[in-house]
Amino acid sequence: MSLRYLSAKAAQQIDEELMSTAGAFSIDQLMELAGLACAQTVARVFDKDKYPRVLVCCGPGNQGGDGLVAARHLGLFGYRPIIYMPKPGAKDLYQRLKKQCDNMEIPTIPPSTELGPLEDALASSDVVLDAIFGFSFKPPIRAPFDSALPLLTESKLPIVSVDIPSGWDVEKGNAEGVGLNPDVLLSLTAPKEGARLFQGRHFLGGRFVPKTLEQKFELHLPPYPGSDQIVELSGSSQKL
Amino acid sequence: MSLRYLSAKAAQQIDEELMSTAGAFSIDQLMELAGLACAQTVARVFDKDKYPRVLVCCGPGNQGGDGLVAARHLGLFGYRPIIYMPKPGAKDLYQRLKKQCDNMEIPTIPPSTELGPLEDALASSDVVLDAIFGFSFKPPIRAPFDSALPLLTESKLPIVSVDIPSGWDVEKGNAEGVGLNPDVLLSLTAPKEGARLFQGRHFLGGRFVPKTLEQKFELHLPPYPGSDQIVELSGSSQKL
Repeated sequence: MSLRYLSAKAAQQIDEELMSTAGAFSIDQLMELAGLACAQTVARVFDKDKYPRVLVCCGPGNQGGDGLVAARHLGLFGYRPIIYMPKPGAKDLYQRLKKQCDNMEIPTIPPSTELGPLEDALASSDVVLDAIFGFSFKPPIRAPFDSALPLLTESKLPIVSVDIPSGWDVEKGNAEGVGLNPDVLLSLTAPKEGARLFQGRHFLGGRFVPKTLEQKFELHLPPYPGSDQIVELSGSSQKL
Repeated sequence: MSLRYLSAKAAQQIDEELMSTAGAFSIDQLMELAGLACAQTVARVFDKDKYPRVLVCCGPGNQGGDGLVAARHLGLFGYRPIIYMPKPGAKDLYQRLKKQCDNMEIPTIPPSTELGPLEDALASSDVVLDAIFGFSFKPPIRAPFDSALPLLTESKLPIVSVDIPSGWDVEKGNAEGVGLNPDVLLSLTAPKEGARLFQGRHFLGGRFVPKTLEQKFELHLPPYPGSDQIVELSGSSQKL
């Protein structure tokens, strides 16, 4: 049986079930493991001596939280992350995750509607971690991300996207052509339908799905190697 | 500067600071990373094909929570953990962590004052993960652990202890001779003074200490390799 690609609705159901009374996970736990998987994906593909400066782009929702966790772990791994988070999430959790990054002395581009600071950060970065939009994204792309996404593309920097490339329809992919074209994709829990069209190096993370849930949703997940939090689904395994 | 070995008081202060408003970590986050480090330590030393059956012994406090997280990750890594938790913690967090193990179909020895079920479990285990007492342990060892610790020792199974071997004084080590004699020790955040006397393979975990906190407490932590959650402090690096 082959790996299942999830609709937006199925992805939402799995997320809800993991955090339900039955699933018993807290969002803190899941976000910690998801963010660690993001950081491990960057570390797997981009050598920290050649690509030390990671611009971590965080959206206003849960995926932005994954990004903040990833930024912290990247700092601990010896990278030099910088955070772009123009619309900080209001929840207490984001503020705590942001504080944890502050405590690591990870700089954040000051929130602004101006694009200059983002352009400057891109000019002094080696790789972009795209944690802007997740599987609950619905078009249109709102400001300031409508202007930011083209800047990320124009920068020609390598991009690692989390779960679904930002701007893509979760099920139809980049049909509208307004999304990013990342080099690397990290699907979380299971890949989304839109990711079928992704051509780059594709990893899976979210090593927290119990067997019972995997069977219920017929995910047919591949085995993860050793104690890694990620597994590569396709592509070459070259480190850049 | 050499690695600092912590007094019980300093360990407590660091823990409090990590979870304070300033440190901003939730216990869910720290426990997830600590438990993952425990599971990675078992996986580093004990091959899952030769040592698949891990008896995870959990105390009633926070270290028992680390053990539950470790049991879940060991299950995900392909080991066959069994949980011994005769005094389940009352906090909602433990109940959720236990439920997550139940969802992974990880068996738990039914709570009992009888030792028979523990003896049976030891007879069909390959390795013991000792997450019974942590740095806040104060003697004497209370029932049923006063009877359980000698059984673990008599089993002759290899033991991996978390933070400080159970029964050891956090600062004076196993001076009383009533504690376990583990083969492997995973110190969390920084080693405790009592661990100076430990002779086996010694790992450090808890890769979440921000540089500012490390400096404030003059921990002089060693660098962790790659994206690992553990680093070996001494001993041979042979996998059993």
